[in-house]
Amino acid sequence: MEEFKVPESEIIARKDALQKEIRTNEIDGIFISQRVDQFYFTGTSQNGYLYIPAEGEPLLFIKKYLPRALTESPLKHIIEISSIKDIPGLITDYYGKLPGTMGLEFDVLPVKQFNFYRTIFPALKFVDASASILKTRMIKSSWEIEQMEKTAELSRATFAYAREIIRPELTEMEFSGILDAFSRKHGHGAQLRIRDYQTEGYTWHILSGKSGGMVGLLDSPASGEGTSAAFPCGAGNKLLAADEPIMIDYSAVMNGYHMDETRMFAIGSMPDKALKACRAAIEIHDSVLEKVRPGITTGELFLHAETIAGSLGYAEYFLGPPGYKVSFIGHGVGLELVEQPVIARGRNDRLQPGMVFALEPKMVFLNEFSAGIESVFMVTETGVRLISRVPAEIFIC
Amino acid sequence: MEEFKVPESEIIARKDALQKEIRTNEIDGIFISQRVDQFYFTGTSQNGYLYIPAEGEPLLFIKKYLPRALTESPLKHIIEISSIKDIPGLITDYYGKLPGTMGLEFDVLPVKQFNFYRTIFPALKFVDASASILKTRMIKSSWEIEQMEKTAELSRATFAYAREIIRPELTEMEFSGILDAFSRKHGHGAQLRIRDYQTEGYTWHILSGKSGGMVGLLDSPASGEGTSAAFPCGAGNKLLAADEPIMIDYSAVMNGYHMDETRMFAIGSMPDKALKACRAAIEIHDSVLEKVRPGITTGELFLHAETIAGSLGYAEYFLGPPGYKVSFIGHGVGLELVEQPVIARGRNDRLQPGMVFALEPKMVFLNEFSAGIESVFMVTETGVRLISRVPAEIFIC
Repeated sequence: MEEFKVPESEIIARKDALQKEIRTNEIDGIFISQRVDQFYFTGTSQNGYLYIPAEGEPLLFIKKYLPRALTESPLKHIIEISSIKDIPGLITDYYGKLPGTMGLEFDVLPVKQFNFYRTIFPALKFVDASASILKTRMIKSSWEIEQMEKTAELSRATFAYAREIIRPELTEMEFSGILDAFSRKHGHGAQLRIRDYQTEGYTWHILSGKSGGMVGLLDSPASGEGTSAAFPCGAGNKLLAADEPIMIDYSAVMNGYHMDETRMFAIGSMPDKALKACRAAIEIHDSVLEKVRPGITTGELFLHAETIAGSLGYAEYFLGPPGYKVSFIGHGVGLELVEQPVIARGRNDRLQPGMVFALEPKMVFLNEFSAGIESVFMVTETGVRLISRVPAEIFIC
Repeated sequence: MEEFKVPESEIIARKDALQKEIRTNEIDGIFISQRVDQFYFTGTSQNGYLYIPAEGEPLLFIKKYLPRALTESPLKHIIEISSIKDIPGLITDYYGKLPGTMGLEFDVLPVKQFNFYRTIFPALKFVDASASILKTRMIKSSWEIEQMEKTAELSRATFAYAREIIRPELTEMEFSGILDAFSRKHGHGAQLRIRDYQTEGYTWHILSGKSGGMVGLLDSPASGEGTSAAFPCGAGNKLLAADEPIMIDYSAVMNGYHMDETRMFAIGSMPDKALKACRAAIEIHDSVLEKVRPGITTGELFLHAETIAGSLGYAEYFLGPPGYKVSFIGHGVGLELVEQPVIARGRNDRLQPGMVFALEPKMVFLNEFSAGIESVFMVTETGVRLISRVPAEIFIC
């Protein structure tokens, strides 16, 4: 594997973008404790905390392990601490004072931790800075796009490998493990990252035949069977079989950057009803991509997809069965599997160059199967560019 | 796989234990939103919220997907909701009023979510109920021990498989994937669950040779190399080689219940220095197990381990290199990989029958290798019983 390091120019540009954002929101400084946010603004995931003032240099406080943090991060001010309690004094030493208004990651920070922060930073006003952080992370730089293209190549190779090794009598879970073993050999980091504390990220969303017809806990058209009531989603213990539609929704991650792609497979043949639905999903997918350009809202894209699905005769199945439909067809993707914005009903977020999305029009035939496709694309100055390298096809193996 | 369902008697006993606990703490009801806590008290992981009053029947509110929740959970009151905003009215309908003091999972609940709860439950007093929940979960029933024994058998088979397939020229990550594929075929749920929002659970903590000598972000003696600065822990892209110590720290999960075990492997031969350290770790492990009995504190067990490590000449290496030692040798394990209590310096928690622990005395030789062992045991009425089925040996393959 080639050496990976986040360039200093990236770190500076990210800091500048965040500082501009937080000044607009009248936040004097942000205190970051979540791992992905820290990695984004520093280049290191070592155990620590990051302070970014509205103006001036960030201070990275490392509990463990300083030598690696110094190698990984291009930041100038990296300070070893023995306890988080050291931090208020160190900020005061450097800046002469603490910020009046401190931004925190309210969307991930547990109440217990927050209450503790209030004891070590008494008298500060705390506000939610998660929107500023996520808005900054939403626009990917060309360096980030290059990283995602590397992950896309890994994902392409993994889907190609799936075509070689898919066979009846593998359980969904075993098949997922064989894919992960291949992908890990070629650089897959294996741990998907999800921000929401009620959502679990996993690579094994493989739904064969009737597993694809199982609705469940997920905010996703189909949940699959899963391995038990403890984890009732994703691949289960069902055996893959010939002549059934098999949905492979696979997420690879490399150097922190995720891909999230879905293709339909079949062993031997695909039943005609499923084949038509898979083709319709590809048609919806392609039609949405044609609409992508800066300025259009994600809500407009959603409505367009819904209209096409209806015109093709799939309104009943699109995005889930009646009563259990999800209201999105895509989501931002980057250092976390689900980022801002989402391509969802009623959303007014306008596409901007540098946004990267997973687009996933899917259909569920209750108790029968799922059909769908998912690709990752970026918004360019003039329109759209696919990052996905897996052919937008149905794979009959 | 055999059908898995949490028995009604379990659900009732857990509710009773929690209600006794919260009455002691003057909490009138607990509102649960975290998936593992919900599963523990209901038997279902479907997307929902759980209300447990200090007295009376729990109310389970399901957003998605009611048919599966009804099948999975033996609870009597399972109510479909379209929005969390429906819940205060439904609690009031059933109990005639809302609780005066509402307990929440402050250790995992994000501030943003908490602030939202305050708008839908105005005028309630909110307190942290996480200690009551974790204290209830800490004591495993005999049914839970049976579940953990099934996971232990899966883990035993996976370690046996590792002995068959370990070979030079596999990367650490690829090897981890091959183990996961095997384990998933035999029931492994693959997703480890960790409560702390700053900690990531993963199955691929495989540290070969000098990878075992790498300290890093983890609150663990060694972090390994990992795949990049984005995920700088666990297995990396280093190739396994002959004649080096290889630490396999593998966690299997089945029906929600985790095992967490470590064994030292070598291909061909184990260098003498490492072999001696591995034997010392086993000696410490066995000596701690001899001390286990109801009433002893986890702090006493920790000191005993430290004393033995010192007497064997390993004080410098025990639990990490000087300056970066961790201060625990074990932790509770169950529906989450790390549960209460921890076996740590200075802790006064007394062992009680039904507690289940992973015991992991480890040593780090900085920039050289790790040595250690990890087994899961339970506290019985009279002493200790191993749940682990992997022989406490060093595997030279």
